[in-house]
Order: sequence, then structure tokens, then C-alpha cells
Amino acid sequence: MVKKAVCLISGGLDSCVTVYTAKKEGYEIYALTFNYGQRHEKEKECAKEIASSVDAKDHIIFNINLSMFGGSSLTDKNLAPEVDHKLSEIGKTIPSTYVPARNTVFLSIALAYAEALDADAIFIGATATDYSGYPDCRPEFIEAFQKIAEVGTKKGVEGKTVEVKAPLIGLTKAEIIKKGMKLNVPFEKTWSCYMGREKACGRCDSCLLRLKGFKEAGFRDPIEYEVLPSWF
Amino acid sequence: MVKKAVCLISGGLDSCVTVYTAKKEGYEIYALTFNYGQRHEKEKECAKEIASSVDAKDHIIFNINLSMFGGSSLTDKNLAPEVDHKLSEIGKTIPSTYVPARNTVFLSIALAYAEALDADAIFIGATATDYSGYPDCRPEFIEAFQKIAEVGTKKGVEGKTVEVKAPLIGLTKAEIIKKGMKLNVPFEKTWSCYMGREKACGRCDSCLLRLKGFKEAGFRDPIEYEVLPSWF
Repeated sequence: MVKKAVCLISGGLDSCVTVYTAKKEGYEIYALTFNYGQRHEKEKECAKEIASSVDAKDHIIFNINLSMFGGSSLTDKNLAPEVDHKLSEIGKTIPSTYVPARNTVFLSIALAYAEALDADAIFIGATATDYSGYPDCRPEFIEAFQKIAEVGTKKGVEGKTVEVKAPLIGLTKAEIIKKGMKLNVPFEKTWSCYMGREKACGRCDSCLLRLKGFKEAGFRDPIEYEVLPSWF
Repeated sequence: MVKKAVCLISGGLDSCVTVYTAKKEGYEIYALTFNYGQRHEKEKECAKEIASSVDAKDHIIFNINLSMFGGSSLTDKNLAPEVDHKLSEIGKTIPSTYVPARNTVFLSIALAYAEALDADAIFIGATATDYSGYPDCRPEFIEAFQKIAEVGTKKGVEGKTVEVKAPLIGLTKAEIIKKGMKLNVPFEKTWSCYMGREKACGRCDSCLLRLKGFKEAGFRDPIEYEVLPSWF
């Protein structure tokens, strides 16, 4: 019987490598993307192309207005994401782009979808190595959510757990990119920049981590940047 | 400094007693009600009156379309909730009214709200004694979610946990009603019936548990019913 997976696709590089990993492992893909009040539409367009490139059985764009609570520069137009960080600073403190409880909300909705579908797994592109320091990207968070899937659902009570899989959790950005290269991930369809302008800004934490990853992996990043950091 | 609590208010009896408990404990109330695709509007009207009766500092009606995943008679108009159960049957198996991962989704959004507000606690009216058998109403689920609040948020990482409080979890329905009586809970403003007609149906699991509770507590239920069970 075919295994089903709900895959969170943001349109970014990590979730794209993650869904290609799920595909490679033989899962039928049910893509889930959130329209949550983020600054720009660009990553949603990328998410659609990525879902289509893996022949997703379905792709749900789920509306949830997390911007109504505020508290993040990613959803509040009056705040601005940090730029021009030194690489060594990124991930040391939790930046303004952190959205309160975002991955908890996303995984909980993925769990609802997975249970309704009778899916076997949820895939999330969380990574805790070259990352922005978000608490809900760490292994202890994924483990805590696995417990929720076990005790908080009918499926779990019946002994058929939904597995919460974060295959990139321990990888560096360079390792993620190398993994993606092996899987023929279409990196040109991914969008990481927090800004959502015509080209990637090359200055926000997300651009900096992506550029560092490509540099260390020894591959060319196929997307265009407004500026490149001096170390690149 | 005043303590803040995000209180989930469904419009039902349990969440009403819960918010009155939070009020009694001295919390400033931030009410949160979900418009999630449930069968009827009635309980949302009740939720508004309850929030106003405790002088909630704010009341957010949060739209989230859980009906798009299906899988529950509470959100799917083509399915019908069970009626006329024997009391001894209720809670033995998980009924069709179970909404996949509903409390996980609700608590995760409450957590986002609590973190953005810098609130001290979340109150949920979950109860696992005279209940419908929903997995996400049990103590082990609440404990698992407490762990999420600790490891999955910025607040938690900084050592200031949001407490997840379910003060009714171990009480029978009769005990909940007695507790509510002491707190002057306006039971006439609460709505438990799954049907949402003019009067409560008196036949669904939710009506049956409520009626049993009032009977055992020795109080009169101030709301009207279409029919009453023979044992009442």
C-alpha cells in the first residue's frame, strides 16, 4: 500500500529538499502551504511550482492569519527584518523574524490534515544547524510534537502514529544543498529571502545562510541577488 | 503586576466554568474563540456573551477552516452526530464528532496569542471524566502540550513558560456544575448541543452529558430542550 505524507512546503530551500526526500522515500505527497500573513506572495508561488514538480496528489493553501497577534517582523509591516548580520551572529539570539509558535501552529494543522487523510507521516524542513535560532526548529521541539501526535489523536490512540519527520534537522546548509543536488531539486524554484522583491536582497539572515551554504557546498546558487556579501 | 491568561471559550459549559475559574484566580482575560467550520453559529454568540460577562480585555474570534480536511460530523454537513446513546456508552469509543487534532490546533493558536501578549497562562476547558472520549481532552495530552510551550517558543527558551491550565480535567460533569454554581457562572448563556437549533436537542452526547451533570449535581439546567431522556 502506498505511504502518504503531508509535506509542509514554504517555497524555501529547506522545505523543497525535504519534499524531494519524502518523494525519494516513496511517499505519495500531500502538500500544505500556509498563507499566514507573511510579508510577500513570492514564496507561495514557488511552493506551487515545487508541489507540482513532485506530482503532489493535492496541494492545500491554508489561510491562517497569524499576523493578527503581531510580535514578528515577518508578519508586521511596521517592523523590518534584520540585515547585514555577521555570519557568526546568526542563530545566537532569536531574531525579530521569529513568528510566535509558528511551527507549532503549522504542525498542528498538518496533523489535522494527516489524520483526516490517514497519512503515515508529516515532513517538515526544520533545521537547527545553519539556522536563524528559532526555538521551534530544534530536535527537542520535533520530539515534543511527535508525542502530541501520539497522545492527541484518534490515530495515535489506536496505535497508528503519524511520524513527524524532519530529515534535515542535523544538517548544515551546505549538506542540505548537496543532498538537494543529488535529488535533482530545482533550486531555481525556491525562494529564501525575507523581503520578496524582484531579486533576493542578499542581506537578510535567510539570504546570508543560503549564500553561505552554496559557497561551502561549492555550487552556484541559480537565483539572482540585489547585492552579495563581501565574504561571498 | 497583573497576570494575563488566554482563555479558550467555545460557548459551552466547560469552557465557561474554566474562564470563571481564571477570573477568580486573578487573571486578566484574553478570550479566544474559533470559527472553524462547526455546524452552527449558536455557540459563538454564547462565547461573546460569556467573554463580555468576565470583562475580557480582548476577545478574538479566530477563523480557521478545519472543515476543509473533513473527517468529522461536527464540520461535515453530510455526516450526523450520534444521538440517543446510553450514558454508559459515551466516552467508550471515539465518536464521529471528533475533529482531527482540534485541540492541538486550538492550543497552538492560543500559544501564539499568549506568546505575542506575553501572557502567563492558557486556560482550556478540557475534561476527561464525563466526556466524549476525545483523545485531545486527556491529561497526557495537556502535559504533552505543556512541553511544546516550553521547548517550542521564545518565551520558553528564555525560561518564562506559558502555563497550560485545564482546571476541570479530573472533574465529573456534576463537579464542574457545582464549581460553576459557586463561581456564579451564567449557565443560561452556555450552549452544549451539537445541533444548534432553537432549543437544545436533548439527544446528542453533549446534551446527555450535560443533563446527567445537572441531575447529579442537583441543580436545574436553565436552558430549554426539545426532548429529555427517559432517565432524566
